[in-house]
Amino acid sequence: MKALKFKNNKLFYIDQTKLPLKEVWRQCKSLKQGYKAIKELQVRGAPLIGVFAAYCVCVSLKIFSSKKDLFLKQLLSSLRYLEAARPTAVNLSWALERIKRVVLINKEKGLTQLKQAIITEAKNIHSQDVSLCDNMAYYGAKLIRKGEGVLTHCNAGFLATAGEGTALAAITRACKTRGHIMVYVDETRPLLQGARLTTWELMKNKVPATLICDNMAAYLMQKKKIHKVFVGADRIAANGDTANKIGTYNLAILAKYHKIPFYVVAPFSTFDLKISSGRQIPIEQRDGDEIRVLLGKLRIASADTKVFNPAFDVTPHEFITAIVSDKGIIKPPYRKNIKRVLQGAR
Amino acid sequence: MKALKFKNNKLFYIDQTKLPLKEVWRQCKSLKQGYKAIKELQVRGAPLIGVFAAYCVCVSLKIFSSKKDLFLKQLLSSLRYLEAARPTAVNLSWALERIKRVVLINKEKGLTQLKQAIITEAKNIHSQDVSLCDNMAYYGAKLIRKGEGVLTHCNAGFLATAGEGTALAAITRACKTRGHIMVYVDETRPLLQGARLTTWELMKNKVPATLICDNMAAYLMQKKKIHKVFVGADRIAANGDTANKIGTYNLAILAKYHKIPFYVVAPFSTFDLKISSGRQIPIEQRDGDEIRVLLGKLRIASADTKVFNPAFDVTPHEFITAIVSDKGIIKPPYRKNIKRVLQGAR
Repeated sequence: MKALKFKNNKLFYIDQTKLPLKEVWRQCKSLKQGYKAIKELQVRGAPLIGVFAAYCVCVSLKIFSSKKDLFLKQLLSSLRYLEAARPTAVNLSWALERIKRVVLINKEKGLTQLKQAIITEAKNIHSQDVSLCDNMAYYGAKLIRKGEGVLTHCNAGFLATAGEGTALAAITRACKTRGHIMVYVDETRPLLQGARLTTWELMKNKVPATLICDNMAAYLMQKKKIHKVFVGADRIAANGDTANKIGTYNLAILAKYHKIPFYVVAPFSTFDLKISSGRQIPIEQRDGDEIRVLLGKLRIASADTKVFNPAFDVTPHEFITAIVSDKGIIKPPYRKNIKRVLQGAR
Repeated sequence: MKALKFKNNKLFYIDQTKLPLKEVWRQCKSLKQGYKAIKELQVRGAPLIGVFAAYCVCVSLKIFSSKKDLFLKQLLSSLRYLEAARPTAVNLSWALERIKRVVLINKEKGLTQLKQAIITEAKNIHSQDVSLCDNMAYYGAKLIRKGEGVLTHCNAGFLATAGEGTALAAITRACKTRGHIMVYVDETRPLLQGARLTTWELMKNKVPATLICDNMAAYLMQKKKIHKVFVGADRIAANGDTANKIGTYNLAILAKYHKIPFYVVAPFSTFDLKISSGRQIPIEQRDGDEIRVLLGKLRIASADTKVFNPAFDVTPHEFITAIVSDKGIIKPPYRKNIKRVLQGAR
């Protein structure tokens, strides 16, 4: 299962706002379409939007000027444009930064070669993400035992990456290799990625799952049904503080109180070592109608109801038992160990 | 504002499933209609269902036999029937028990007199609830200071009682008497009583309110926007353990972690001193479609998605800073102080 495809220089993706009722594939033909797809969460999940944005640049190359100077100007401006689509996940700017670097390295070459270099880099970002997911699934699955109940939040599966996923890949791998587990899926208001996407993915993968509302996790923990919590990440600071979908910090506190291990699963591209703590992570505030009108279709509160709608929260590092990265499992103290593991030292 | 009216032996109530978009008043003419209204949450809120059930009996009296023996049999069977509509809130069985006692005391009297005694008792339960609410508002408001942010869950206002409410009455009273406060309202999945009912009530009462999803409370606490948590209750055991809408225990843990006072507001009729702890409170499990299909209208997960849908959870007494009752504020140790305060000793 894949969330996007790039074939013959054409970019196709599943419109995730239509899931689980319909599996609608769309083609992205322009920067503007790509920006809209990211902004409106047709394409979401930190690693996936990085890969998708890189390909958005590729499909836009043909409309840029054939004069080198103007081409470069348009290209760099398109990178800035796409980067602004969503502020919290760092993978988006990380992927676009990689494209930029390739452009700068190859800027003396002919336009055809330059374009080819950009496309090659986008494909590299894509194939790298696939293998990062495979690694995270391998390391993460080791932390789950047969018969356990594992809680997850939002969607951190193949719909969130170009590969098998992050947190959900670890869970799915554990189910395949270790035997029966039960996955409890937070529905994840306001946009219900857990209910709509994660339960759909788990069914496709034949992994047993039970859907709950976000406010039911504490009850399940009290009843000893949850043995581990696994979540993805949108940005991890140098000290291990982790931005992820709103509600993650909530779960982290509940897990700590009930003495349940709490794991974050993310590839190296989600780490932002330029920032020393989570306080520096910008939190995207989204339209209040996401709360007032269920999935844009069913109004539950009047238009003049004041709402507060942060898309993410930051979980302080002291709540995180370990971070599962593509390079291995990172344990506290994070400031030291994140650097050590990501740099490949053992 | 009232959630029900009893006039000329006719019972009218707001169908709360239609709020906030429409204020639909319905008439309850039979036991079966009353049972359905409670079961389907057209009428909800622990104190309100007690008053409503007592009146349901009143409107059914005319269809019972005119032979005393059969009348008594039908009447007692109707009490058992209504009591089964919802298992967690104790106010329902408490109100029906009061009706039963009046029946037993007056069973030697003529049918007309007996019927009159039942109606009088239902009206007493009603008017008593109004004054209990007034007392709780008075005591509860003392705990809130001007400028504070107060978080509430579900609906514990005039739509949950025959009077001004419990937790929400305290908050509203504080706003009227102490000056500006900001009420943060948990939307309260799955049935969204916070979003649909509480924000609507607060607007009617001109109390500033901000609606959030249930998973956002921890973020607001981290940002120091919440100074107090106020919730209602469906049943309180002798040791102070409190059953309330699912998600309450979640909030209690978050409040404790952030050192925010957590108050439960409930009248004496919500206390069940026959049970020594919350472990003995039955938790109603409701239909999974309440989660899979938003408000019965918008599907978010396929019909074969397994779900878990407890309507309530139990918050252990050690999380509760104080219980605001109609007889005053009860502080720990609860086993001793609940008895003392409820029995009126000072």
